[in-house]
Amino acid sequence: MAKNVLGHDLKHTVLERLMHYYHFVGEQLENGQGATVTSTQIAELLHMDATLVRKDLAAIGVRGIPRVGFNAREVLGTIREILGFEEVSRGVILGAGRLGGAMASYHGFARYGLKICALFDCEPTKIGSGWAGYVVQPLENLPQVVREEQIDLAILTVPAEAAQSVATFAIDAGVKVLWNFANTNIHVPEEVFVRHEHISVGLAELSYRLKRHRRSTHHA
Amino acid sequence: MAKNVLGHDLKHTVLERLMHYYHFVGEQLENGQGATVTSTQIAELLHMDATLVRKDLAAIGVRGIPRVGFNAREVLGTIREILGFEEVSRGVILGAGRLGGAMASYHGFARYGLKICALFDCEPTKIGSGWAGYVVQPLENLPQVVREEQIDLAILTVPAEAAQSVATFAIDAGVKVLWNFANTNIHVPEEVFVRHEHISVGLAELSYRLKRHRRSTHHA
Repeated sequence: MAKNVLGHDLKHTVLERLMHYYHFVGEQLENGQGATVTSTQIAELLHMDATLVRKDLAAIGVRGIPRVGFNAREVLGTIREILGFEEVSRGVILGAGRLGGAMASYHGFARYGLKICALFDCEPTKIGSGWAGYVVQPLENLPQVVREEQIDLAILTVPAEAAQSVATFAIDAGVKVLWNFANTNIHVPEEVFVRHEHISVGLAELSYRLKRHRRSTHHA
Repeated sequence: MAKNVLGHDLKHTVLERLMHYYHFVGEQLENGQGATVTSTQIAELLHMDATLVRKDLAAIGVRGIPRVGFNAREVLGTIREILGFEEVSRGVILGAGRLGGAMASYHGFARYGLKICALFDCEPTKIGSGWAGYVVQPLENLPQVVREEQIDLAILTVPAEAAQSVATFAIDAGVKVLWNFANTNIHVPEEVFVRHEHISVGLAELSYRLKRHRRSTHHA
């Protein structure tokens, strides 16, 4: 892996935590709850250790003032810069089913520098129809769109059984990063980055908490 | 937090990693790639350190045989038991929009012990309509359904501005665990567990990788 501005690569667990801090601090500011925020406040909301919050923020160069806290705007700005939200990336959605439609109609991506440029499907009955302001295009148009619109990223919302072949087609078309929402692993060449968004990963935590809750109630 | 069967509480990062191992090992077995799996194989696919894989598996009581690996079925069975997939939990979906519809039509929850029992919305035009085999019910029916069907969990797929009031209503109705897909934080009493599934958390990693990719290309 290449080096980042701080001379090392941030692991995905750190990136995810930064994003959670970003949300929390952003909401604090929006709600007018003060221009400083402490690691203890962040840690409490996210059920984590304040030491780790400080360590993560120090790793991206944000330092707090003892007994005062962190400057909220500095936290937000630094995270935006580190994560690259200020540089626009261009993406497409592959698969115009319910999930693809939900993605297409989500207007929040722009805040994170992602512009969704087109929506594709293989299903002849879907092609040409409108979804959240996009006209569904046939998948064979993808290589041209990737070239002409400089697409970096594809969101994969096809059924599991189509995921690998559609992913391979997108990579051949020049897509560098895949965001996989199909509930299956896909294999990609080393230079391509794929993030699997298994819904079941969230379920793992919920199921565990429910089981614990049930036991504590039964034993009470 | 209460103690688990192993005498300590597993952190959510560990739970998420266990779920990734579960998928990887499950696919290995399904594809007939052998009854054993090594920590190195798991670590490579997931871009992580093999030592951490061994540490996580040791934490749930699974030990490998040196130079052979882990018994794939034992890994799967232990993770299922630890995460509670063998015990059925009952859930509802609150919000019959595109995302709620996608959730309702996802048949994979049953594999993880989650049974979706009903789908609710506030919008009069949606109530009574069919979505993926569910008839959309008015939100005011929720307390009765929670009571009669012993609902533990609610999936929140309402718009951000409705999230807090719908969450509070669900908690008052007796829901113990919330899975929040609305893009906003919600506040809950201490005894309720909420998992925020911000789509932007995934975006953080993708945006970071894209930025890095772009720089390495420009400097090449």
